[in-house]
Amino acid sequence: MLAAGALLYFLPLPGLLPAQRQLLAVFVATILALVLRPAPMGVCVLVSMTLLALTGTVPPARVLLGFSNQTVWLIFSAYLFARAIGSTGLGMRVAYLLIRRFATTPLRLAYAVVSAGMIVAPFVPSDTARGGGVVYPVTRGLAQAFASEPGPTARRIGSFLMLVCFHGNYLASAVFLTSMVANPLIAQFAMKLGNVHITWLGWLAGSSVPALCSLAAVPYCIHRWHRPHLHDTAPAMALASRELAAMGPPSRAERTLMAILFAVMFGWVASPWHGIGNAYVALTGVCAQLLTGLVAWDELLAETKAWDVLLWFAPLIMMADELNSGGVVKVVSEALFVHLHGLPWIAGLAFLVLVYFYIHYGFASMTAHVTALYPAFFSAALAAGAPPMLAALPLAYFSNLNAGLTHYGTGSAPVFFGAGYVGEAEWWRIGFLVSLVNVAIWLLAGGLWWKLLGYW
Amino acid sequence: MLAAGALLYFLPLPGLLPAQRQLLAVFVATILALVLRPAPMGVCVLVSMTLLALTGTVPPARVLLGFSNQTVWLIFSAYLFARAIGSTGLGMRVAYLLIRRFATTPLRLAYAVVSAGMIVAPFVPSDTARGGGVVYPVTRGLAQAFASEPGPTARRIGSFLMLVCFHGNYLASAVFLTSMVANPLIAQFAMKLGNVHITWLGWLAGSSVPALCSLAAVPYCIHRWHRPHLHDTAPAMALASRELAAMGPPSRAERTLMAILFAVMFGWVASPWHGIGNAYVALTGVCAQLLTGLVAWDELLAETKAWDVLLWFAPLIMMADELNSGGVVKVVSEALFVHLHGLPWIAGLAFLVLVYFYIHYGFASMTAHVTALYPAFFSAALAAGAPPMLAALPLAYFSNLNAGLTHYGTGSAPVFFGAGYVGEAEWWRIGFLVSLVNVAIWLLAGGLWWKLLGYW
Repeated sequence: MLAAGALLYFLPLPGLLPAQRQLLAVFVATILALVLRPAPMGVCVLVSMTLLALTGTVPPARVLLGFSNQTVWLIFSAYLFARAIGSTGLGMRVAYLLIRRFATTPLRLAYAVVSAGMIVAPFVPSDTARGGGVVYPVTRGLAQAFASEPGPTARRIGSFLMLVCFHGNYLASAVFLTSMVANPLIAQFAMKLGNVHITWLGWLAGSSVPALCSLAAVPYCIHRWHRPHLHDTAPAMALASRELAAMGPPSRAERTLMAILFAVMFGWVASPWHGIGNAYVALTGVCAQLLTGLVAWDELLAETKAWDVLLWFAPLIMMADELNSGGVVKVVSEALFVHLHGLPWIAGLAFLVLVYFYIHYGFASMTAHVTALYPAFFSAALAAGAPPMLAALPLAYFSNLNAGLTHYGTGSAPVFFGAGYVGEAEWWRIGFLVSLVNVAIWLLAGGLWWKLLGYW
Repeated sequence: MLAAGALLYFLPLPGLLPAQRQLLAVFVATILALVLRPAPMGVCVLVSMTLLALTGTVPPARVLLGFSNQTVWLIFSAYLFARAIGSTGLGMRVAYLLIRRFATTPLRLAYAVVSAGMIVAPFVPSDTARGGGVVYPVTRGLAQAFASEPGPTARRIGSFLMLVCFHGNYLASAVFLTSMVANPLIAQFAMKLGNVHITWLGWLAGSSVPALCSLAAVPYCIHRWHRPHLHDTAPAMALASRELAAMGPPSRAERTLMAILFAVMFGWVASPWHGIGNAYVALTGVCAQLLTGLVAWDELLAETKAWDVLLWFAPLIMMADELNSGGVVKVVSEALFVHLHGLPWIAGLAFLVLVYFYIHYGFASMTAHVTALYPAFFSAALAAGAPPMLAALPLAYFSNLNAGLTHYGTGSAPVFFGAGYVGEAEWWRIGFLVSLVNVAIWLLAGGLWWKLLGYW
C-alpha cells in the first residue's frame, strides 16, 4: 500500500501534473488501505487527510471541507433516526410485522424488504435519505429480531440482510427519474447536449424490464454468495406473533417518532417545492427528536458509529471532490476516449458504459460522478455513433448502479457498511460480483428491451 | 429567549436589511439560550443552525461551514491530547510535580500554572493550541489529583483552576506579539492604516506593566469570587511526594507521548517557517498517537466531550462568520461611531476601546474580531485625535483580553469550559467581573505606563 502510494507519488505519469499525481497517489493508497486494513478505516483516512495538508497537495482551506458536506450530515442524521427507531421499539415492531408476514425463508424476507423500499423510491429523491433513514433502521431491526449482531452472530442473517438491502436500495434509485438526486440532472444534460428528451415515464419504461430482472436476480445471487447461516426462519414467525402480542399497541414514544418520521419523509418528498436540502430536512427531524426527548443529548454524543462514519467518509468525499475539481478525472477519462476510434458504435458504447461504471471506484458520490463525467461520456457516445436515446439511457442507469461497488460510493453505503456486519473485503467482493450481474442484465436484457422499444 | 428572538426577527430595525436582522435575531436568541439553558447547549445550537437553514437566512451551502473550520478541529485535537496525557499518567505526573513544588495554597498553585503558561506563550502563536493542547491537560490533571471532578466535587478546586488557567491563558496571548495568531495581523493593520510601527519588543514594552498587574490581580480576584472549597492543600504536597515515588520513572507510553508533544509544540513554534496551520500540526500529533497505539480508534470515537464541543462550537463559528461577512457587525459598529463627534480624544478612545472589547460577546474567534473590527476602530481612534501609538496599542491588547467574556470567545474557551467544571452562568459572571478588572488595569495603569513611555 505504502509502496504503491510512494511509486505514484514520486514517479512521473504522462498527462498528469505533479500535484494531480500526488493527489491520485494518496487517494489510491487510501483506497488500498481501506481494503487491506492495516489499521481502522478512520485512522487510515485521517492519516491520508493530514498528509494531504502537510504536503500542501490540497490547500489548507479545502482539506477539511468534507466535514461541511451535506451528505455527511444526512448520514449522521440517519444514524440518529436508526437509534430512535431502535430505542423506542418501533424498529422491532416493524421487523416483527415483516417477519410474521414474509419470513418463510431468509430470501423471501429479503425480497419483501427490498420491494418495500422500491415502493418508497419514487417519492424520496435521495439514495442516502431513503437507504439510511428508512430502509437501514428496518434492516437493523430485522437482524436484531433474529439475534444477529455485528461480530460472531453477524453471519446468522444480519450480514446477508445488510448486503441485500443496500444493493436493493441503489437499484431502486435507478428505476425512477425521481428516486436519486442526480437523475433529473442527467435528464437535463441529455436534453442540453443531445436534445434527448427523457420524461418521467420514459425513464421508467427504459428501466422497467432490466430493473425487474435485477430485483429478482440480485437478492438470489447474494443469497448464494453470502448464504445466511440461519436456514429455518419458520420458528421466527411464531416468535414474532408472540412478541407482537406481548408488545401491545404502539407506545407514546413510538407514535411521536412515527409522526416525526412521516413529517421528515414528507419533507423529502416535497423538496422540489420548498427547496430545502435533504440534510436539513433530516436535521429538523433530529432536532425534533432532541426536543421531544426521544433522544437525549448524551445518547447522541455516544452514537460512536455516527462519529466513525463522519471521520472516515468526510475526508474521502473531500479527496474525491479534489480529484474531480483538480482535473484528474478529466485527464483519465480523456485518455480512455482515444481507444474509441474506429470501433463500431455498439462496441464503443459498451466500452464507454463499462468504463463509466467501474471508474466509480474513485468516487464517493453518485452526484459528483454524474456532474463530472456524464456530459463527457454522453458526448463521446454520441460521437461514436450511438442512437441518441441509447447514448443517454444506459449511462443514466449505470450512474445509479455504480453505487454498489464500494462502501463509500454513495451516502447510503457508509450507513449499511458502518453497521459493522460485513467486513471491507467481503463488501467489495459481493459488490464486484453484483456489478457483473447488473452489467449482464442491463446491457444484454436491457439492450434487447430497448430494441423492442425501438430505441435502436 | 424565544420572545426576544421573535421580536428581533419580525420587527424592523433601522439600518439592517431583513436578512441581516433575522440572522442577528437567531444569534441573539442562541446566546440567550446558552446562558438560560432551556436544553443542553448542543441542542440549542443545533436547533438554531437548522432554523437558519430552513428559513434560508443563511444559504444552504454555508450553513455547515463551521464544521470545516480549522479552529474546531484544533479543539478536537486538544481533547485527544488531553485524553492521552491523562491515560498515560503523564498528566498526573506533571500535576504531582507542580503540587509538590507549589501547592502550599490553591492560589499559589494557580499562580504557578499560569506563569508556566506565560513562559510558553511567545513560542506557541495560538491561544487555542497553547490553552487546549498544553495548559488544559495539566489543569485537568491537577483537578484529578485533588479528586475534584465535574459534578459535586467540582468546587473543591477544579472549577477554580479551570477558571484561573483559562483567564491566564488569553492574558498570556496579550503579552507577546507572537502569542496569538492575529497579533501580527494587528501590527500589520497599524502599519498600513496609521503608519504605526509595532515591533516585537515595542509590543512587549507596552504590555509588560499592565500584564504583570493583571497576572497578579486576576487569579487573586477569581479566588475571592469563586473560592475553592479546599483550603488546606498542604497534605496534598505529602501525597504528591508519595505518589511520585510510587510512580517510578516515566513509562514507555509517557515517553512516546512526550516526544509527540514536543514535536507538536515545535511544529507550532516553527509555523512561521513551514507555513502549516496549527490545526494540521495538531492533527499530525493525533495521527501519531493513533499509529503508536497511545489512543485506540474506539477511544477516540468515545471521546464525547470532543463531539459535544464540535457540535455546539462549529455552528456558533458559522453564525459569527455570517454576522461578519453579512455586514451586521459593520452596521452596528458604524452606528456607534456617530457618538464620537465632539468628544475629547481621551474619552473617544476609551469609548472605542470599551465598545470594541464588549462587542466580543458576538464573536467566536479573536482573529475574526480583529479582521472585522480592528481597522475600523483603529481608524476611528486616529480620526478622534488619539496619538497614533495610543490608537493602536490598547485596541491591540483588548483584542486578546476580550476572549475571557464568554465560553465561545476563543478556541481555548470551549476546551476549558467543555471540561464540565463550571456552569454557563458562573462562567459568564466571572468573565464579566474579570473584564472589569482588566479594563481598570489596562486603561488606568496601562494609560499611566504608556504616558511614562512617552506615547502621549
